Amino acid sequence: MQIYFLLFPDYETLDLMGPVQLLSKLPQAGLHYVSQQGGLVVSRQGFAVVTEAVPSPLAADSVLLVPGGQGTRRLVHDRAFLRDLAVWAAQAQFCLSVCTGAALLAAAGCLDGVRATSNKRAFAWVQSTGPHTHWQAVARWVRDGRFYTASGVSAGMDMALGFIADHYGRKQAKDIAEQAEYLWQDDPCADGFAARYGLGGTASS
Amino acid sequence: MQIYFLLFPDYETLDLMGPVQLLSKLPQAGLHYVSQQGGLVVSRQGFAVVTEAVPSPLAADSVLLVPGGQGTRRLVHDRAFLRDLAVWAAQAQFCLSVCTGAALLAAAGCLDGVRATSNKRAFAWVQSTGPHTHWQAVARWVRDGRFYTASGVSAGMDMALGFIADHYGRKQAKDIAEQAEYLWQDDPCADGFAARYGLGGTASS
Repeated sequence: MQIYFLLFPDYETLDLMGPVQLLSKLPQAGLHYVSQQGGLVVSRQGFAVVTEAVPSPLAADSVLLVPGGQGTRRLVHDRAFLRDLAVWAAQAQFCLSVCTGAALLAAAGCLDGVRATSNKRAFAWVQSTGPHTHWQAVARWVRDGRFYTASGVSAGMDMALGFIADHYGRKQAKDIAEQAEYLWQDDPCADGFAARYGLGGTASS
Repeated sequence: MQIYFLLFPDYETLDLMGPVQLLSKLPQAGLHYVSQQGGLVVSRQGFAVVTEAVPSPLAADSVLLVPGGQGTRRLVHDRAFLRDLAVWAAQAQFCLSVCTGAALLAAAGCLDGVRATSNKRAFAWVQSTGPHTHWQAVARWVRDGRFYTASGVSAGMDMALGFIADHYGRKQAKDIAEQAEYLWQDDPCADGFAARYGLGGTASS
């Protein structure tokens, strides 16, 4: 399995690095840090990471992970980026997003007709980027086929472990969580944050 | 407050990036990604981050955070690095470690007579690096004066929030956790992992 972590300017650090930590423990997983053009990419938290350009095409066993962050506010209007993202997402075997990364996938049209979730504080905005997505307001993460979308920031770690459980078995996920002394919130439906932002039930649109 | 995140080859990603995420939300915190020599530093998970050399001396209001990871196994024998680390730790107002980062502080002599904790799977090895440290086997994190040490990997996030609570108030810590949709394990003594590795009670040496 080849895992492509998509970086862009002003991505939110933990959206990316939480899943990096956990997915890196998979046996024989190849980790790739990529961006649209390659080169140095600076996170919202101000550090620069060396990236390669996304290869074309992605290998057949690819996983694409899209973080969120302030940078998504600009990128949802960047047609060239969204066009590329749609291609990468179509080529990947699985496509994962964390936080407002779902807004990028939605704006690229990848989530049309798909059940998905996102950050709860930014939920109204994210919904507006994907009018044909079936947004789930109360969810830690959502799997719909080959798409996994997580709620805000740290929910990406719970989703990453859920992804591992689905494809490598629950014991593998629990072992990886334990290695990192991580308290895995392993129920994708248990969401204590939605209600704090006045969100309840499911919000399909 | 100026926060210096110390990178070295083969540091463990989340040890560093978890606290980066949470501490970055402090108002007026300056974030600095540093290493002994400056330049590109590659994490255990294979991505390269641009760093600056640690400034000399550190500002009076500095916080130094030392992650753990495979790279510590080599660095505990690197006398020049340990000598520098002892100087940085002495200059910093607060000194934080995550996971086996405590082994570096201990080997540098910084934790002599100090209560501290570390990763539970590597606990015996970490203890061996600091015979004069009062190691606490059952702890999510430990504060002793200006030293904060966290248990394995993800415990660094709970400690970072504990640090924020101590110095900026509990409401600030809870707000930052909520923003990241992070389920804060806020009791430094609640450690469900020690027993899994046959550790119990406190293990002062």
